[in-house]
Amino acid sequence: MSELPSWNDTPTRQAIVEFVERVTTDGGPGYVAPHDRIAVFDNDGTLWCEKPMPIELGFILHRLGEMCEADASLRERQPWKAAYEQDHAWLGNVITKHYHGDDNDVKVLMGGIIRAFAGMTVEEYSDAAGAFLRGRHPTIDREFRECGYLPMIELLRYLETNGFTNYIASGGDRDFMRPITEEVYGIPSERVIGSSNALTYQENEDGGSVVYLAQPDVFDDGPTKPVRIWSRIGRRPILAGGNSNGDIPMLHYAGGPARPSLRLLVLHDDPDREFDYVAGAETSLERAANDGWTVVSIKNDWHTVFAGA
Amino acid sequence: MSELPSWNDTPTRQAIVEFVERVTTDGGPGYVAPHDRIAVFDNDGTLWCEKPMPIELGFILHRLGEMCEADASLRERQPWKAAYEQDHAWLGNVITKHYHGDDNDVKVLMGGIIRAFAGMTVEEYSDAAGAFLRGRHPTIDREFRECGYLPMIELLRYLETNGFTNYIASGGDRDFMRPITEEVYGIPSERVIGSSNALTYQENEDGGSVVYLAQPDVFDDGPTKPVRIWSRIGRRPILAGGNSNGDIPMLHYAGGPARPSLRLLVLHDDPDREFDYVAGAETSLERAANDGWTVVSIKNDWHTVFAGA
Repeated sequence: MSELPSWNDTPTRQAIVEFVERVTTDGGPGYVAPHDRIAVFDNDGTLWCEKPMPIELGFILHRLGEMCEADASLRERQPWKAAYEQDHAWLGNVITKHYHGDDNDVKVLMGGIIRAFAGMTVEEYSDAAGAFLRGRHPTIDREFRECGYLPMIELLRYLETNGFTNYIASGGDRDFMRPITEEVYGIPSERVIGSSNALTYQENEDGGSVVYLAQPDVFDDGPTKPVRIWSRIGRRPILAGGNSNGDIPMLHYAGGPARPSLRLLVLHDDPDREFDYVAGAETSLERAANDGWTVVSIKNDWHTVFAGA
Repeated sequence: MSELPSWNDTPTRQAIVEFVERVTTDGGPGYVAPHDRIAVFDNDGTLWCEKPMPIELGFILHRLGEMCEADASLRERQPWKAAYEQDHAWLGNVITKHYHGDDNDVKVLMGGIIRAFAGMTVEEYSDAAGAFLRGRHPTIDREFRECGYLPMIELLRYLETNGFTNYIASGGDRDFMRPITEEVYGIPSERVIGSSNALTYQENEDGGSVVYLAQPDVFDDGPTKPVRIWSRIGRRPILAGGNSNGDIPMLHYAGGPARPSLRLLVLHDDPDREFDYVAGAETSLERAANDGWTVVSIKNDWHTVFAGA
């Protein structure tokens, strides 16, 4: 019980330990060589909290609000209007609607996001994201960098100790997470897979710059997740963790025909210590029940949710 | 002189050693922390030979020829015609024309490549590429897997020993190289950046498959190289190696405003031991002369070209 100390001794914890012991037992029927011990994790709602709205949306709101200060005409148009009026409900609903198949507001929001960061170099964006992420969460009394779930961070370390290599495969913006993934999760920038706006190379005397264009590139969700995972890693993971309908293909993809798999689906059922919601996760919970995926109940399986809490 | 034994003791070798000593001297003016010691290398013509035609084209020819056996009507259409008639000159000229700004034949060839592999799973493609790469080079008396330049392989090991992380950033197909990059270069699949056709996820009962579509995705050459390097790594390299005009942006991008850089441009000037050509490299050689990039002369700087030769 020295590993995973923030996990209660439940069947969920046992499933994790048994899977890791199975794939690391040399000569056993489920043995997987270290270079194929790939684990992929969604970020928002899986490794850190995503309510009352995804942390990245706070960053975008902040930037859109800055734009309204400079250009008053933007204050009457979504998504600038929601940002200027601090209408968090409009923004929180965008993702929920997406999970229910309605992408109209996603398109409106993406239109704003695209204009918000167009022309920035990747270094400027990284500095802005890093500065925002040193701020505090709006409702939980802690910094954003302390919003990672301690049991999941312990799981990442436990997997590493057993020869796994961990990746983030998030629907969120890849370059927004990168400034803090090494510090928070021990996952370096080259192992962060996520959404991105299109980039271009602009030559200059200082070696040129990589700059965001005003157009989307990859929205890394649903069936795009396995595609991006293969593109980046060149191997099929054996362990995947997610928490929503957008993670279903990634979870199903783990293991494949020839290897064992562990699929973890985080269930947000703890209103006292975190949040209580299933919106956007209904289908994934059905799949978990039908296909024997391992549901991680925050209320029952986690002794501690956040470090120091 | 224990490192880089296949390099002659020339100013080129000295430039490499001095750069590595500079960036690894803790407290020195050019010190770079290990996590920023990123090195990127083009593959064809930089890490292994690309004449009389790029090795990947041989693989494509082989596949297109197979298609002509099954469908005779293809034998009168390019690129199937060139494949069926073993017209290597047509295919070799495609890349040369591309480097001179004429992409008409590239489009014809890409149209064939796209149809050649559409519908294959990534595992099927990997198996086919791996089998082809266990074959022999058409003109050099050795296997494809022995066509890596020994001095460059020694350089990769020397850089690793000094805390660098090496990546391939190739205009060639990413998934074609992956089956052998670990064995030949010690570079695992997750550190191979390159071109790719578009992929899609197809669900099935065995965890689903990632499958090639009949459409291109990324052509990783020229200004796309810095963009893909950032997208995959999230850091700007400090060392880049290339050999052609398509590598200019990647070479220029190395280092940037704040760090030292080393740009290596391999010059094919050794008709006895390898090949002698500058087609497609003219502009890069001008840039090297003007900007002080380090030209690696195969004839003068390499004591040995291929292992065991």
